[in-house]
Amino acid sequence: MTEFMRIGAPGAEIPVLRHEGAHYDLRPLTHDIDGAFLAADGLRRARDAARGGGLERIDLTGARIGAPVATPGKVVCIGLNYRDHAEETGAAIPQEPVVFMKDPGTVVGPFDEVLIPRGSRKTDWEVELAVVIGTTARYLASDEEAAASIAGYAISNDVSEREFQLERGGQWDKGKSCESFNPLGPWLVPADEVADPQDLGMRLSVNGEQRQNGSTSTMIFGVLEVVRYLSQFMVLRPGDVVNTGTPAGVALGMPTPVYLAPGDRVELSIDGLGTARQLCVAA
Amino acid sequence: MTEFMRIGAPGAEIPVLRHEGAHYDLRPLTHDIDGAFLAADGLRRARDAARGGGLERIDLTGARIGAPVATPGKVVCIGLNYRDHAEETGAAIPQEPVVFMKDPGTVVGPFDEVLIPRGSRKTDWEVELAVVIGTTARYLASDEEAAASIAGYAISNDVSEREFQLERGGQWDKGKSCESFNPLGPWLVPADEVADPQDLGMRLSVNGEQRQNGSTSTMIFGVLEVVRYLSQFMVLRPGDVVNTGTPAGVALGMPTPVYLAPGDRVELSIDGLGTARQLCVAA
Repeated sequence: MTEFMRIGAPGAEIPVLRHEGAHYDLRPLTHDIDGAFLAADGLRRARDAARGGGLERIDLTGARIGAPVATPGKVVCIGLNYRDHAEETGAAIPQEPVVFMKDPGTVVGPFDEVLIPRGSRKTDWEVELAVVIGTTARYLASDEEAAASIAGYAISNDVSEREFQLERGGQWDKGKSCESFNPLGPWLVPADEVADPQDLGMRLSVNGEQRQNGSTSTMIFGVLEVVRYLSQFMVLRPGDVVNTGTPAGVALGMPTPVYLAPGDRVELSIDGLGTARQLCVAA
Repeated sequence: MTEFMRIGAPGAEIPVLRHEGAHYDLRPLTHDIDGAFLAADGLRRARDAARGGGLERIDLTGARIGAPVATPGKVVCIGLNYRDHAEETGAAIPQEPVVFMKDPGTVVGPFDEVLIPRGSRKTDWEVELAVVIGTTARYLASDEEAAASIAGYAISNDVSEREFQLERGGQWDKGKSCESFNPLGPWLVPADEVADPQDLGMRLSVNGEQRQNGSTSTMIFGVLEVVRYLSQFMVLRPGDVVNTGTPAGVALGMPTPVYLAPGDRVELSIDGLGTARQLCVAA
């Protein structure tokens, strides 16, 4: 297994490859894991270099782990994409993908703090499979073309303020774009190292209590269909992130919702994509 | 009057200052008109340099005019922000700003082609006053703080596919983010050279026929209130663009809508911010 990471202070991360548990410095190959690197087939080149012994090891002890890709050009999200989650929120099963966006500036590291917005009473969690785009995609005609446009996968926490999203008028984006609302990572796993993106267990706990326990096998619109669909409406570009929806188990779906508060600890994992943990603090 | 422009091929624009009708090359001061330049008080420094005779003139004959700021970190939009437009579309007057987003990659030059998406039957126009953010804004407390965070203003065409936006399920973003759907410019005019952003006439015509003829004086939520409001929900960063809504006169509001088709020519202008023109072509 090979995983890609970005390590260091926010805005000053360096690119790192993790191969069979050891870490390698990718700076001889690229200054960052960004759209240009992905578009230039950087993941394959870096992996070849690691396997060929051409990279130097690096010690990451104590270093911050950043999001595994540089700030995306956009973050597109699919809403209500798991049948059980649509049902728990009282929404109808969508006839075609529900599309919304987050501010790309919300992307932070997988162990960074999540800021509870001022005035928030309903900050919620959502474990999601994130797709990272590798090539420019317009009007894709097939699942094969969609597959070819995907660089890899990561864990996303699509943090959501439900009052801002649903009770303050207008569109969802208002409750989806608060500062720090998209922890991403720890790893970007190349698409060809994920055997079946539609068969990944995914879990989320709050303060040690399991809240979400689902599988990408229950998505309404699968990853390839989502990417192909989106490309009919917008250009997907290398480095863009697509959050593909969350299974049941969010606070909004609880009989008596218990939302996130400062001091809460969220832990997320998806099979093969690692584990992320965030401490909630007041903004 | 001083106006800022970006000139050259897409992705290779150079920064230019227009002062009393002459054009000056800004490359000795900055490589681009982007968030970093705006945050470093670049507009004032460039204007001072021009006034002091410290810049060289440049001939722009025949050159393409790009968007006046580099690709934004995000494009945030306010919907239904003019009473007459809310009424023409049959929507209620919003109680608080309706917020949605466009893919930042939709930003193109003011004279670039607008691509009518494949399968589109309802591509519509919207002349809007665009606000360009100059400093990082979080939880702004007053109109004064909002004013201080604004670098300047430009003309935006918030092109919208109404079927994708309103009839295909979910959120508006799906009909707002098609390729080329946000022509911006020609100029970025510094905020201190716009006497009153709430008293600007704005016009849009299609094939020479006037469709929109409004004024920013009829906004429901004014520019400063919009910026202050948004900063409660998201971090506004230098170079971000806020489209502040459109007055009446869009195709969606016509008794029998006539939407845009390949070959149509759209012309937009806002007092003091110049004129933009786009030819529609098939995607």
